[in-house]
Amino acid sequence: MTKPLFGRVAIIGIGLIGSSVARSARRGHLAGHIVGFDRKAVLKAARPFGFADTLTDSIAVAVKDADLIILATPVGAYGALAKAMAPHLRPGAIVSDVGSVKGAVVSDVGPHIPKGVHFIPAHPIAGTERSGPDAGFAELFDGRWCILTPPKGAKTGAVTNLKRFWEGLGSKVDIMDAKHHDLVLAVTSHVPHLIAYNIVGTADDLRSVTQGEVIKYSAGGFRDFTRIAASDPTMWRDVFLNNREAVLEVLGRFSEDLSALQRQIRWGEGEALYALFSRTRAIRRSIVDAGQDSAAVNFGRNAPAPKPKKAAKKTKRR
Amino acid sequence: MTKPLFGRVAIIGIGLIGSSVARSARRGHLAGHIVGFDRKAVLKAARPFGFADTLTDSIAVAVKDADLIILATPVGAYGALAKAMAPHLRPGAIVSDVGSVKGAVVSDVGPHIPKGVHFIPAHPIAGTERSGPDAGFAELFDGRWCILTPPKGAKTGAVTNLKRFWEGLGSKVDIMDAKHHDLVLAVTSHVPHLIAYNIVGTADDLRSVTQGEVIKYSAGGFRDFTRIAASDPTMWRDVFLNNREAVLEVLGRFSEDLSALQRQIRWGEGEALYALFSRTRAIRRSIVDAGQDSAAVNFGRNAPAPKPKKAAKKTKRR
Repeated sequence: MTKPLFGRVAIIGIGLIGSSVARSARRGHLAGHIVGFDRKAVLKAARPFGFADTLTDSIAVAVKDADLIILATPVGAYGALAKAMAPHLRPGAIVSDVGSVKGAVVSDVGPHIPKGVHFIPAHPIAGTERSGPDAGFAELFDGRWCILTPPKGAKTGAVTNLKRFWEGLGSKVDIMDAKHHDLVLAVTSHVPHLIAYNIVGTADDLRSVTQGEVIKYSAGGFRDFTRIAASDPTMWRDVFLNNREAVLEVLGRFSEDLSALQRQIRWGEGEALYALFSRTRAIRRSIVDAGQDSAAVNFGRNAPAPKPKKAAKKTKRR
Repeated sequence: MTKPLFGRVAIIGIGLIGSSVARSARRGHLAGHIVGFDRKAVLKAARPFGFADTLTDSIAVAVKDADLIILATPVGAYGALAKAMAPHLRPGAIVSDVGSVKGAVVSDVGPHIPKGVHFIPAHPIAGTERSGPDAGFAELFDGRWCILTPPKGAKTGAVTNLKRFWEGLGSKVDIMDAKHHDLVLAVTSHVPHLIAYNIVGTADDLRSVTQGEVIKYSAGGFRDFTRIAASDPTMWRDVFLNNREAVLEVLGRFSEDLSALQRQIRWGEGEALYALFSRTRAIRRSIVDAGQDSAAVNFGRNAPAPKPKKAAKKTKRR
């Protein structure tokens, strides 16, 4: 057995993403020892899965002697955690994270990082609508991108090691600056989530349409939005509070475009509608070609619900 | 073999939905003879699949002696088709459709229907992002709802037969009036599609973010929207032009709610965001419980793209 990439890896927050990092690091033999930090109740839920060698609710114990520390809680908790762990970090260690925003992480965490410790934020573009230590799995990052946003002056060796770690977890790795990351992700993730949350809320509110109808007829398109609108509420609250500027900018563009569409519908401008609807079709194709989504129709979901009895009988008769 | 429910069934437009009706009617032994009508080019594409007994581009030939005629083109073409078929309809026949709007269908088609012919609009809540005769499949309607909107005075016997037909295709059947249908579908299908088309268009437009980045990082949420934004452009243009009133009403509500959310982000109102994000999670659960979507995470899509070589090697070493 070759020596693992890192000796001791501490994962601070062992929910969906943190526990997937642990599982995948084990699969890839990337860590000599894995420590999981979280609240007592979460540790209890995590214990049966055995994805960490040590589980602790002491931040000092968690980060002591760790070569790599990964923050994997909602980003709103990062500042306090960084402050608490700072006195216990060993020189040469790498502090990283998995947060969906990067500018705020740099300003919340950066000031607490002692000299001699490398601080390299990271963001794996992967996830599911579930949360908690039972929701994680080793394959979550396979074929997905992970973006590193090393601050100016970051040591090349540390960045390379973190890049290797994410490649070992199955990811492809890109490097960009935090500000650009936050804008790109506002487009590809944050505003889509906000819109999904919003339409699900609107549908739930509409008094003239019953909730039962919204659910029954959701296969008309609505159900697609409910998946991401079922994502972790704390995580997403923190994303919007911490990427305010980029989210509001992209949202402004979205609303402007939506007003134009609204007007086209009101005035019956069929050609303009057709032009947009044709253009968007091509984007889907590019995403499938890039291996970032399933090529199967309907996401390949095995849609058929239990068949009505009558239909099932008739089918047999064939 | 028992006698099929209908003798001769004519399907006017054999794309995704029309060809799925044909395939499913055959599976369920619901028609003695299936006629498919479309343009010559589409007929040519359809021929190898053999889902119809007769293929024709003559509307007169298609509907002659038919017991059930189903309009399955984009709804914008219904009026002209109804006018053309009217002289050839036999008394006692049922004219129905599969359109996503119902009010406009009643006013476009209704006036052309001769006395003695039953007109009962229908709308199966099922589909995929593909189109064309090669995209259809017999299982499309299994476990999905089909809504019938019989006009006042519709004959009970005819409604019952059409209901049996859709049950034979695998659907569960609901009956409501056209106006309510159009509002419910604006919420569960039309506005979600419009929003998906819009966000995909906005992302495509944003100059400060490259198209390559939008595609690479789409697994952050954006890719979910691209599926429905890849739906047939002609069909959807017609939906928006023909359900203007309800779409604009629901869109107004959506925009109002989005403005409130925008304000909450701007002013950092975390509690309000958290409250909405928690509420929407429950809706997802109800949809899965109702059998209207897969319970598997990420829609059960077999997400992993081809693994980077390094990771694959490390995995084996385990």
